[in-house]
Parts: sequence; C-alpha cells; structure tokens
Amino acid sequence: MDDFELDVDTAVTPLGEGRYGATITDRWDVGGRPNGGYLLATAARALLAEMPHPDPLTVSAHFLASPPQGPASVDVEVVRRGRTVSTGEARLHSGDRERLRVLATCGDLGALDGPVRVTARPPDLPPRDACVGGQAALPGGVEATIAERFDMRWAPGLPGWANGQPSGAAEVAAWVRFADGRQPDPLALLLVPDALPPTAFELGLFGWVPTIELSVHVRARPVPGWLAVVVRTRVVQGGYLEEDSEVWDAEGTLVAMGRQLARLALPG
Amino acid sequence: MDDFELDVDTAVTPLGEGRYGATITDRWDVGGRPNGGYLLATAARALLAEMPHPDPLTVSAHFLASPPQGPASVDVEVVRRGRTVSTGEARLHSGDRERLRVLATCGDLGALDGPVRVTARPPDLPPRDACVGGQAALPGGVEATIAERFDMRWAPGLPGWANGQPSGAAEVAAWVRFADGRQPDPLALLLVPDALPPTAFELGLFGWVPTIELSVHVRARPVPGWLAVVVRTRVVQGGYLEEDSEVWDAEGTLVAMGRQLARLALPG
Repeated sequence: MDDFELDVDTAVTPLGEGRYGATITDRWDVGGRPNGGYLLATAARALLAEMPHPDPLTVSAHFLASPPQGPASVDVEVVRRGRTVSTGEARLHSGDRERLRVLATCGDLGALDGPVRVTARPPDLPPRDACVGGQAALPGGVEATIAERFDMRWAPGLPGWANGQPSGAAEVAAWVRFADGRQPDPLALLLVPDALPPTAFELGLFGWVPTIELSVHVRARPVPGWLAVVVRTRVVQGGYLEEDSEVWDAEGTLVAMGRQLARLALPG
Repeated sequence: MDDFELDVDTAVTPLGEGRYGATITDRWDVGGRPNGGYLLATAARALLAEMPHPDPLTVSAHFLASPPQGPASVDVEVVRRGRTVSTGEARLHSGDRERLRVLATCGDLGALDGPVRVTARPPDLPPRDACVGGQAALPGGVEATIAERFDMRWAPGLPGWANGQPSGAAEVAAWVRFADGRQPDPLALLLVPDALPPTAFELGLFGWVPTIELSVHVRARPVPGWLAVVVRTRVVQGGYLEEDSEVWDAEGTLVAMGRQLARLALPG
C-alpha cells in the first residue's frame, strides 16, 4: 500500500514516546502551501498508530500556521481509552513551531450496527461518462499540485468559474478518485472533504480561502471505487464562510461529512 | 451579569498558571447528566479568560466522560497568539479524570467585515404568539432540569413525539430564550445548539443520545431578543447520527452553526 502517493506522503516514523517523524511534500499544495486535508491526514497517520481503535470517527483540526515543505514531527497523546471509542490528540510541529492541532475520537467502523434512516441524497451528478475530466486552472494563475493527485470529473460546464461564468451558487460537486489508483479508506476521507476548489469561486469571490478549522465525521468504511463529493456554502459574512461537504461511496453510502470554517481573504 | 443562571453556573475562579476552578451544577441536566453544551460553555469561560481575542469563532469539544455534579477544574493553554485569531485548548477535569477537551480558535466578532452572501434561511417557525410554550415531558419519564433554564416556543403540535406522533422528519425547531431574561451572547451560542431535545425522537427512536463531539461556529454577535433555532439530522446509521444546528438572532442574522456527532443508544 505504501507505493501510493497519499501513503508515501503521509508516512510517519515512530521516534518513541508518542512522537513521530513526517515529511511535508510539495505534492498537495495550493499556491505553494500544503492543503489542510493533507496535513490532517499526516497527523492522523501518527495518531492512529497510537490509538487502541482503528478508525477515526470524528476529527477536529485547528490550523495554526502553514508549514514549509520538509521535515515535521507529530506528537500524539492518547487522552482516553474507552471500550467502544477512544480520544486522542496530535500536534504537528515543524521548524520549532506548532502548525496544526487535532482532536480525534476513534472507534471501529467495522463494528457499527443500528437502524438506518437517511434523508440526505448523493449529489445530482451526471453519469461519469457524461462528465468532464481534466484540471481547471485556478484564478490568478495559482498553481495547485494537489490537482494532479486526483482524477475529478465534473458536470459539463462546471465548475462555472473555470469556464468564466461563476454559477452564483456556492456549491461544487465532482466524482473523485486518486489519480494513482489508490482506493478510498477512512484516512483518505479526512483529506477528500478539503480537496475540491473553494465554493467561493462560484460566487465570483476570488481570493485566498485558508482553512481555520476542519472537522470530519467518518460514518462508514467506503467500498472501492469512485467517490461522489459535494461541498456547499450557505453563509458568507464577516470575512468567513463555512464549507459543508459530503462524501458518498460507490454503493451510495454516506461515508463522510466535513465542515470547515475558512477565512475569505480577498485581494485589495 | 453574574446573577443570571448561565453566568452563575459557568463561573470560573482563577487558580493561577492557566487553571480555573468551576462547579458543575444540576440545573442543566438531562437524565441526571449535565448537558454537553453546558460543560462546553463552562470550559469556554475559562478559556476566554486566557485568550487574547474576546470571542470564540470555532470551537471543537470532545466529550470523554460525564462529570458528576460538584467541583471541577479547567486547565487552559494558549496554543497560538495571532494578530486576527488565536487558538487555545481547555481540559475540564473532575474527580481526577479528564471529562472534556476543547480546542477553540478565537477572534473579535466586532471587527469582522466582508461581502455578505447568505442562501441559508431561518427556520419556518410560526410567529411566537401562534407558538406553544411549556416543556414537553421526555420519553420514559427522563427528567431534564435544562428545560427549566429556557423559554422555548414550538409550532402547534410539535415536537411531534411529545404529542404521541413523531413527525418522521428528524428536524426540530423552536423560538428560544433564557427563562431568566439573560440575553444571548457568543458564550450562550456554544450552549444553545445542544439545548433542544434530540432529533432522533421525531423518528420514533427513543433512547439515550450522548454527544461524542460538538463543534460550533460563532458567526456573529447576536442582538438582544429571541433566537430561532433549528436542528436537523439527515444520516442515522451504524449507531451514530449527526445533529446540524443553526441559530438565528432577532434580526434574522445567522449567528451560529453547530454540528455534533452523537451516539444512538437504544434500549434493549
């Protein structure tokens, strides 16, 4: 499994006493800064190595400062060991500064049981062969290496901003898989909710949209295959916006819900 | 201000080096256990006393174990001091056990500026004089002292479960204010998203619905007056559900968004 890009780039090395070494690569960047979901997945790799339960159920990440490419460390504390769930904390440092702090409650997604009542529906995406692949150039010539890590398929004409016509609706949806054939798993579900271009672009608000905080609920283990991902924003005010995401697997199961608070930093 | 119930019951006393004393009262209980939002507000009181910015912008709380009524302590760490936002952590202990850990990124809600694009709408509640007050008895004779802390007004016939007819839609909405006349503020907005009865009851799923994790985005300072609160669940599966909440102030501004992951523990 460690030949896949996500696994190589989030790999951690135990250094003892809950500390892990990591390397922040430049393959998950937007405008030269590593994507928040990628940093979260890296911290989670270390955290999951220490936790008594195998899967993240709910993860809360507060982003402190963008780390440069290069070596980093992750310190993990097991806060509480429980029978069905456990809670831990991870702190990602690089260059003597803490960059990211994460709280996570973990469990066993293979052991879940209970009634199913789902009124949410997968995004209204056309079939994949009616969708358009390829990577849209970001506004202002911003480079995004993260775009090369995914195969994303959009409804024709979308995203609107990439075709010169922001849709006016702060919603983006796409079929998503890893470009190198890696299959989705709970670790990937920490990254995918933050992988699509900002919803704000569809409102014609072109700027830097850094993640302040990202939370993800992992609700089921995904089956192999494509993911359907949708991200919606309903409130832009005061220089902040929320991005609410849903990730559905190839069998139509809701496998993750994400929510982030992002800052809207417009030029000028 | 300290005569109001919320302020009395979340009061903290500085003990030095970031530690605060607190008292968990029995006035915010559901079934003899303190409400998660109340515990979060108590931890946040201590945290905000240490932070360089006055308001919580985004708060993530992981609940470890329900504390008994009585003395507690909160340890606060300022993780990062920034110009526009700061991040801190609070740990609530009682009886030598950690009960709650909170990450919070704070800022100044009075200093926010930027374009406003809002497609979310306040809940479709009848005017207050067409609504019904009073407290519904919880299923199974469970006592909820927290119900006495609020004045809640429901659309006639709702909540459905309280009238013997669960609506089948996992949504609850109400006009909400504190029973003692306390006006809403950002601290109160950490509590209110967790104050309504569980959405699961409207699906006829009557059980214990403990909060695993609760996150709240505070998006604006509320004006004085009633709050309109709505809580929705769209995915119940595997013994877990999300509760997504919105809080709107008396001028129709979205002032908070909450999301929690809760466990659905059904009897038998």
